[in-house]
Order: sequence, then C-alpha cells, then structure tokens
Amino acid sequence: MKFSEVIQQLGVSSAHTSLSDRPDLDPEVAGVNAIDTAQADQLSFVEGAKFAAQVQTTAAKALILPKGKVLQQAALERDIAWVEAADPKLMFAQTLAMFYQPFQPAPEIHPTAIIHPTAKIGDAVYIGPHVVIQADATIGNQVCIHPNVVIYPDVEIGDRTILHANCTIHERTRIGADCVIHSGAVIGAEGFGFVPTVEGWYKMQQSGYVVLEDGVEVGCNSTVDRPAVGNTRIGRQTKLDNLVHIGHGCQIGFGCAFAAQVGLAGGVEVGNRAILAGQVGVANNARIGDGAIASSKTGVHGTVEPGQVVSGYPCVDHKIYLKSSAIYSRLPEMYQTLKQLQKRIEALED
Amino acid sequence: MKFSEVIQQLGVSSAHTSLSDRPDLDPEVAGVNAIDTAQADQLSFVEGAKFAAQVQTTAAKALILPKGKVLQQAALERDIAWVEAADPKLMFAQTLAMFYQPFQPAPEIHPTAIIHPTAKIGDAVYIGPHVVIQADATIGNQVCIHPNVVIYPDVEIGDRTILHANCTIHERTRIGADCVIHSGAVIGAEGFGFVPTVEGWYKMQQSGYVVLEDGVEVGCNSTVDRPAVGNTRIGRQTKLDNLVHIGHGCQIGFGCAFAAQVGLAGGVEVGNRAILAGQVGVANNARIGDGAIASSKTGVHGTVEPGQVVSGYPCVDHKIYLKSSAIYSRLPEMYQTLKQLQKRIEALED
Amino acid sequence: MKFSEVIQQLGVSSAHTSLSDRPDLDPEVAGVNAIDTAQADQLSFVEGAKFAAQVQTTAAKALILPKGKVLQQAALERDIAWVEAADPKLMFAQTLAMFYQPFQPAPEIHPTAIIHPTAKIGDAVYIGPHVVIQADATIGNQVCIHPNVVIYPDVEIGDRTILHANCTIHERTRIGADCVIHSGAVIGAEGFGFVPTVEGWYKMQQSGYVVLEDGVEVGCNSTVDRPAVGNTRIGRQTKLDNLVHIGHGCQIGFGCAFAAQVGLAGGVEVGNRAILAGQVGVANNARIGDGAIASSKTGVHGTVEPGQVVSGYPCVDHKIYLKSSAIYSRLPEMYQTLKQLQKRIEALED
Repeated sequence: MKFSEVIQQLGVSSAHTSLSDRPDLDPEVAGVNAIDTAQADQLSFVEGAKFAAQVQTTAAKALILPKGKVLQQAALERDIAWVEAADPKLMFAQTLAMFYQPFQPAPEIHPTAIIHPTAKIGDAVYIGPHVVIQADATIGNQVCIHPNVVIYPDVEIGDRTILHANCTIHERTRIGADCVIHSGAVIGAEGFGFVPTVEGWYKMQQSGYVVLEDGVEVGCNSTVDRPAVGNTRIGRQTKLDNLVHIGHGCQIGFGCAFAAQVGLAGGVEVGNRAILAGQVGVANNARIGDGAIASSKTGVHGTVEPGQVVSGYPCVDHKIYLKSSAIYSRLPEMYQTLKQLQKRIEALED
Repeated sequence: MKFSEVIQQLGVSSAHTSLSDRPDLDPEVAGVNAIDTAQADQLSFVEGAKFAAQVQTTAAKALILPKGKVLQQAALERDIAWVEAADPKLMFAQTLAMFYQPFQPAPEIHPTAIIHPTAKIGDAVYIGPHVVIQADATIGNQVCIHPNVVIYPDVEIGDRTILHANCTIHERTRIGADCVIHSGAVIGAEGFGFVPTVEGWYKMQQSGYVVLEDGVEVGCNSTVDRPAVGNTRIGRQTKLDNLVHIGHGCQIGFGCAFAAQVGLAGGVEVGNRAILAGQVGVANNARIGDGAIASSKTGVHGTVEPGQVVSGYPCVDHKIYLKSSAIYSRLPEMYQTLKQLQKRIEALED
Repeated sequence: MKFSEVIQQLGVSSAHTSLSDRPDLDPEVAGVNAIDTAQADQLSFVEGAKFAAQVQTTAAKALILPKGKVLQQAALERDIAWVEAADPKLMFAQTLAMFYQPFQPAPEIHPTAIIHPTAKIGDAVYIGPHVVIQADATIGNQVCIHPNVVIYPDVEIGDRTILHANCTIHERTRIGADCVIHSGAVIGAEGFGFVPTVEGWYKMQQSGYVVLEDGVEVGCNSTVDRPAVGNTRIGRQTKLDNLVHIGHGCQIGFGCAFAAQVGLAGGVEVGNRAILAGQVGVANNARIGDGAIASSKTGVHGTVEPGQVVSGYPCVDHKIYLKSSAIYSRLPEMYQTLKQLQKRIEALED
C-alpha cells in the first residue's frame, strides 16, 4: 500500500508527516524492517540518537521518526517520507501488525486428538493433532490448542487463548482469556514441597492450583507451579519470557514483565508493573513492590519498595550498586594502598 | 470428619491436644488450608513466631501448634481446637495427605500408545494416549506414564514410578521405583561433549547412561545428561526442582534437594543430604560433601567440605560472605576514606 | 578387536605405540571406559598430570598416553599397551566412535505421523510416531525426526539433521544440514517483544525467523527465539548445551560453545569460536568478539574484545577479577583496618 494509506490506517494526521510539505513523496510500502536492512519498499523507524545517523544511509523510503526538525529535514533531503511519533517503537509495532499476520490454524478438531467426553469445548476452536484433553476440562471459544499439548483434568481455558505445541497444563489450572502459553511451558505442576524428617523427605501434597488472569503470556519451557494449599496467581497482562520459574504460591500483580531465566522461589509477592530482568532470582517469601525493577542477575531477599530499582547479590539500591561495582575492580589497589598506609603510619608513630 | 478423628488417624495421643481439656470442642474438619485463608471447617498450622499472631485472627477452628502453653491458651480462648506437634509443618503435610488424593489415572494402556513388541510391560500400569515406548524397554508394575511421553530403547522404569506428560527418557536410562519425572523433563540425553580441534568441534559420543535410584524426583523441564562412558547417578530420595541441569557423569548422593534452576557441569560429585538453593552453579569436577549447603546463586568451584555452608561467587564460607557482602555497599565510602587518609598522612609526613 | 587393529583404524604409525618395542603386547579391546573404572578389555586415556598416577592402578590393558617417556615406561612395566597422542582426549573420542554406535532408527514414516500434503519430504528419512509436520515444510534427505516432534509451517530442515523427541520447530525456521536439536528444545518461537504504553504492554509481532547453520547443536529444553523483523542466526558448528536461551535477533558466529543455562537477551552479537561457560548472562545488544571467553555466571554488558577473557558481574577482565575476588573475603578485615588507621592518624594529628 502507499505510505499515505499507512498513515491513514494508523490514524495519524498528515500534519505530522512529510505529506504536509511533500504530498508527492508517497512511496509504496510493502512491509517493515530494521533500519539497517530495510529495502526501498519497506518502512522502518529511528529510536533515539543511536540510530539517527542511519537516516543518512538507510535504503528505506519511509521512516517513523521521533519529534524534532533535524532528522525530519535530513530524511526529506534524501527523499525519504516520514511520520512523526511520540513513541516510534510503538508506531513501528502498530505498522508491523498491519503487514504481518501470525500463523493461526483454522478452527478444527483433529481426529487424532483425544478429548474426554466430560470436557466442554467452546465454539470455533482449533484442537490440533495428538492433543489430549482430560476429564472436566472447559475450553473457551476460539481457543487454539496446537499439536501435542496435554491438558490434565479440571482445567479451564478462557476465550481466544493460544496453547503452543508440546506445552502441558496440569490439573485444576485456570487460564484466562487472551493468554498465550508458549511451546514446552508447564503450568500447574506440583510445587517443590518436601518436609525434612529423620527418615528423609516427606512429600507435601500440592492440593492447590494455578491462576493465570487474562492476557498473561508464559514463555517457552517456563514453569509455573501450584502450591500445597491455595493458589499461585499471575495477574492480568503480566508477561513471562522463556525458561522462567514461578514457585508454588507466588502472587504476582498485573502488567509485570519477567525476562528469560528469572526464578521465583515459593510464596513470593510481586506488585503491579514490576520488571525483573534476565536471570534474576527471588528468595522465598520476598516482597517486591509496584513498579519496582531488578536489573539482570539480581538476587532479591526480603523487601523491595515500590518503584525501587535494585541490583546485585544480595541486592542493594541500584545507585549504590553502580558505585560499589565500579570500585570492585580497584579492590587490589585499595588493599595495597591500605598496607602501605599502615606502614607509613607505623613510621610516623615511631 | 471430626477433629478427634483426624487426631486418631494421625496417631497422636489426645493428651497432646485440646481434647484433654475441652473434649466438647470437636469441630468438623473438611480440609486443610493456609492460616490466613482457612475457613471454619479447615485445619491449619502455625510454624514459628512469624505466624503466631494469626492465632488471634484465623477463621480456622482447628490448628496444629508448636509446643508451648501461650499459643495453646490463646487458641482455646477463641474456641479453636489444637493439636501439638514437634514439627507442625510435617503434621500439616500428613493431614493434607488425608484429605487430598493426587490425580492418578486408572490402569489402562491407551490404544494410541505405540509400544514396541520387545518392550516388557508390568501389571496395573497406566500408559496414556500417544505415549511411545521403544525397543527393549522394561516398565515395572503400577507405573503411570502420562500422555505424550517418549521412552527411547533399552530403558528400565521401576515400580510405581510416575512419568508426567511430555517428558522424554533417553536410551539405556535406569529409573528406580517410586520416582516422579515431571512434565517436560529430559533424562539421559547426550552430555555436552565436544573436543576442540583445528578443524572445529569433534563430537565425543556419549555411550554412558543415567541412573536414578528409588524415590528420586526430577522437576519440570529439568535435564539429566548421560556421559561419554560410565554413568550419571542420582541417589535415592534426592529431589530436583524445575529447570535444573545435571551434567554428564555427575555422581549425586541420597536425600539431596536442588532448588529450581540449579546447574551442575560435568563430573561433579555431591555427597548425601546436600542442599543447593535456587540458581546455584557448580563447576566441572567440583566436590560437595555430605550435608553441605550452598545458598541461592552461589557459584561452587573446587571442594565444599561436609556440613559447610557456602555463599557467593566464587563461593566462600557463609559467615565470611555475610560480613563481606554487608561491606560491599560501603565500598565507595571506604574508597573515599582511603583517599583522605592518604592525604592526611602525606600532610603528616611533610 | 586387537589393540593393533585399533591403532591401524586410527591411522597411527606403530612407531608411536608400545607395539614398536613390544609387538607381543596386543590385548583384546572390546570397548572404552574411564581410567578408574576400565576393565582389562577396555581402552582408556590419561589426560594431564592429574590422572597420571592411575597408570599404576588401572585395570585397563591399553591406554592412550600423552607424549613423554615416563608414563609410557610405567605402562609397559605393568604390561599395558600404549599409544601416544598429541591430544589424548581427542584420540579417546575417536576410539569411542569406533565402538559406540548411537541409536538411530531405520528410515520409516510412521503411520501415526501427521504430515501436511504440501510438505516436501526427502529420501531415507525417519519420521516417528505422532510427529506433526505442517504446511510447506521441507525435510531433507536422511533426516531423523523422533516421536512427538512438532514442526510448524514453512520450516526447512537440512540433510541428516536429527530432531529428538518432543522438540518444537516454529514457523519459517531454517535448520541446516547435520544439526542436532535435542529433546524439548524450542526453535523459532516468538521473541519477547512488548512495548510499554499507558494502557499496558503492546505486543510487537515477531515476523522474523531463526536460522541455524550447518552442524549446529541445540541442547535439551533450550530456546532460540525469532525477532520482530530479520532473523536470529547461529553460525555453523556452534554448540548450545541444555536450557540455554537465545533472544530475538541475536547473531552468533561459527564454532562457539555455550554451556548450560546461558542466556542471551535480544540483539546480542557474538563472534566466531567464543565460549560462554555455564549460567553466563548477556545483556541486550552486547557484543562479544571472536575467541572471547566468559567464565561461569559472568554477566556481560557492552563489549567484550576479541580474545578477551571476562568474569564476574558486571564483568571485568579475568585477571582483575581473580585479584578482586580474592580480596572480597578480606573486606571485613580491610574495613576494620581502615577504621583503626583513621584513629591512629587522628592521634598523630593531635
């Protein structure tokens, strides 16, 4: 489609585009791409100063630019059409959604799927080959269950939720609407509960269940365990990346994002919109406030206050961490200096 | 059932319960729950001082309490029946087991399972839909193999072992009796063995096998690799949480517990009853003694002595770690002090 | 076979073996094993000084030894035949490959496999039970697809590649020849792309794809994500261990090795022959040069130079790390010393 049509579909006024000055500059846009690899018929975006120089070199003939005359002028000089965005990355995502339709199979219940007669199946669902759905499961409308998924008894899956291939949903799990469970993820398996005794570990049965509220995504091969009693809950719109572990009984708010390989031990409470970067670990019963951030590899014990940014292990406030970690590599020098000062003081004391 | 019946089934003398003083106080117990969410017909427990205050607020009408008159008196004043336990958490686990029966399918070999004619299958087994069992496998009695499990050739599975959905057991693996392999776990795949050469990596074939002794549990999506020669062994009653990696040739004793996302490189030796907390990493050929503990995120090289508690990376004795890590956030202050002292000494030396 | 036949098959001149001195010493070799567990009819190897003492105790009657007369003499005194190798471990791997044939099913397309009519299937392939191959996939010759693998639409798999049980290959993935994808791995799933907005996370569609070049191995339950645009690429002969995460858009060179539980965030660039040890984490858009090494648990931000060895978090040059981490456990002592010096200087200043 033409650049001007893209602008129209985005709902942007042409006043915020190069069309106001140069209505003749209306290139064909066949798709989107990164700025360094885009071709002439692809739209791209510039986010921040780091990519600004690429306006001079990109082959793209249409760009999403941040506010500011300099880049817009530079684009025009190279005959590149532009649209201004308060958040270029967001507008790029919106444009990408115009051109890319993710793979979704048409509704069908494959004859090799094994579905228990007591399971309730909604309308317009896709249930792929070799899927297993056990007793008393409830599957909403337009749900998409890719091949080789296994659903244990008494599970509920909300409307439009997607379960990718080879994932496993254990007994009593409640998954909301519009969730995505990626391949290999395991939801609702037994929490790790063993009581030490003189004779060895005594297994604590895990009679609870997992709740994923609407709009939750769980990454590939991630695991969300159920607790001994009560539930493990992940709030609406919270997103987990791959290989994340959520222990039994965790209570996680809405709108959080946990990057790959994050691990939460049992009973952790996380507020709303918290962000845990890659490989963060959180100890038993820790509490993380609303909007808090833990940088990558941080080890969290105790309490993180709302809005606080923490780093390191054991974690400290990020600003302290930056200073302390900068000095870490000077420790040998400090140690030598200390030894010398000691001698010089001894000399002075004599 | 009545509280008095629960006590009887637990085999506890009524002398250690409120029934000795208040035989009239015999509430109905329909289940168990956490103390803060328990309802009137649910039994709960108090473990340690942290939860003691909740005796004043819980809706539960029956509690497992630690020894000591204060809490017992407080419970009675609120008409809560109690039973005393040396280990309240253990008694809670025992009570939970009375009320909760984990899901276990009835014996059946599903017609969609593909079982090689040379495989030997025990009595009273459950083999779910789409399970694949290859040549020369031996499956014990009362084994439960959930849907979509794949078993490679020449595997042995002991009596009553449970394999959850979508797990994979590779060639020659020996799994004992009463084990649980959780969903997505992979046992006995090729160890990571590549020899560097001028032409690139030369693959070391992995001709060994994995042994899991009786009572071992392996968490969801965990991996236990086989070695080039010999075996990788996990001792009886050792429990692995989710997303744990055990490298080729590791030798692990009995009664250990490894929390989520622990990783052991190749050839590690771990004694009996050792505990590795979440995200611990252990380097090639390290040795960890009986009863040793590594706290979360610890990086272990070399040798950890029996009974030692280690922390940090590279790991040090936990007591040293506590002191050093407490000072870590004072490093900038120390650095400044050092610079000042240097100047003051220079002034004195002049 | 006889020791002399092993030597012949290895293509080694008998001048570099004990056969030149003792042609009569030609034991039967039925297999290979580790030096401490080898039996009389098994060949083993000695790598480095650590295992040298075992020449005195091993039951093996044939050994691969490093260059040097001492061990060769010691072996002969115990009537052990030997062959000299510049790289004993490599020669052991070559010998192991003579005796061990990994399990590989004979070509067959199992009747329970569900293969889309538009998929192109090469010659002499094995496609196991319950495999699902979706539209427009292209499967090369002699490919081996173990049971319960799921292949999404438009995937290409090169000749002789092996896909182990329960792995999942997502849409548009290109896998080269001679690759191995281990059980439970997920290749080509959606990258973790969410743009923060006032209303919550806006999902960035992931229209790109993953490329694994020839000879790549991906370990059990590892995940390689596809990006929003462009591709995620892993160069030829690069080997990933278990539970590794490769984020969207990473570009990885050839001949690298990443140990278990390594995680790369999005957009990371890694050169050729780089080595990342266990549990290393790499932040968004970091760059790691050719031949660089990160030791276990290292956290990489920014740039690692070609050939550099880095450790710690945040990572520093390995030599600095060794010195600084050695001083870490002396921090409490340093702190005390500093306090004392301060007082002594005050006394001097008075």
